[in-house]
Amino acid sequence: MPTIYDISMTIEESMQVWKNYEQKKPKITNVQNHDEGKPHESLLSMNVHTGTHVDAPLHMLAGGDTIETIPLERLVGPARVLDLTHVKEFITKEDLEPFAIQRGERILFKTSSSFSEDFLMDFVFLREDGAKYLADIGIGLVATDALGIERAQAEYPTHRTLMRNDVIIVEGVRLKEVAAGNYSLVIAPLKLTGIDASPARAFLMA
Amino acid sequence: MPTIYDISMTIEESMQVWKNYEQKKPKITNVQNHDEGKPHESLLSMNVHTGTHVDAPLHMLAGGDTIETIPLERLVGPARVLDLTHVKEFITKEDLEPFAIQRGERILFKTSSSFSEDFLMDFVFLREDGAKYLADIGIGLVATDALGIERAQAEYPTHRTLMRNDVIIVEGVRLKEVAAGNYSLVIAPLKLTGIDASPARAFLMA
Ligand SMILES: [Zn+2]
Ligand SMILES: [Zn+2]
Repeated sequence: MPTIYDISMTIEESMQVWKNYEQKKPKITNVQNHDEGKPHESLLSMNVHTGTHVDAPLHMLAGGDTIETIPLERLVGPARVLDLTHVKEFITKEDLEPFAIQRGERILFKTSSSFSEDFLMDFVFLREDGAKYLADIGIGLVATDALGIERAQAEYPTHRTLMRNDVIIVEGVRLKEVAAGNYSLVIAPLKLTGIDASPARAFLMA
Repeated sequence: MPTIYDISMTIEESMQVWKNYEQKKPKITNVQNHDEGKPHESLLSMNVHTGTHVDAPLHMLAGGDTIETIPLERLVGPARVLDLTHVKEFITKEDLEPFAIQRGERILFKTSSSFSEDFLMDFVFLREDGAKYLADIGIGLVATDALGIERAQAEYPTHRTLMRNDVIIVEGVRLKEVAAGNYSLVIAPLKLTGIDASPARAFLMA
């Protein structure tokens, strides 16, 4: 039995959400319970970009592919966690070059964002030149521990470069307890269809 | 690379729900889009017992354990799909005995329910004596392709027997495309906490 490292964010009303916007907070309500003589049941209402989630190209590209076009085969398999905890503001091509990243790899960024349960307005993001570098290599997937892989860039060039080059984007993983290195990765988004993202359970095995 | 069999139900507004109740149908709405000059984002609102999902004991036991108490280690690992497609109304102890089920096994029931995309009012369920048999063996998990593992039994003895004996219940898997036999199973529920269930992505590998 391998060791499992759960790298998912807990979905709850008090969790961090994008820029702390009230309308981005999930709502979890009880709809029936044992006091009424019925089974206990809950209703979950959430933006699909809440917590750990997979972005589909439609999120940032008008007319882009929707979430069901991403097969499980792309989300399950070997992966590598990179230690980028020393990076201060954004991840550049120069930050990535020392890792000798290969075509088809699934890459997870462990940044200082993994150490915060609060939304950081200045979270570490992947700068456009870093995204272009990964797209040119032709990696399969990039996951980051911040709630977004990008901020503060007009026209979203990081998202769009990755999406146009078929690199899957996963946001909001939790890597505080995970050391850099090689693992077997499972990203398991809810099986939604026709939309821009899906919330996911995610874990590593070693 | 193993072959992956996705055994999850697609979550969409037209999907089958318990007894076709209107309030059990998921709602998926667009909250912003490219026509407004914003990234495309959607809101998902669903009962946590929609589609493929894991039940927590709280669902059927007042004061029962909640969903975060079920570790991923229980939901990931070897499993066996049983062909029960010949069973007409309910699964009994006698139906299960020929399979020589062992302590700790993860068992999936492939019943005639896998062949219907509509909710079947007379879906095949696990009768109380079958649940007691599995609990006495001490299996780890039971998954069924119907939306429920039980119907038409007062006081829910199937759910309660399984839950009191630490057998995890998974409902709403899709096994039409899967042959009976041994697989590696992944059930990946959203990381919710404090409630009665969680929707899940589920797949088998062979
Ligand atoms: Zn997103
Ligand atoms: Zn249920």
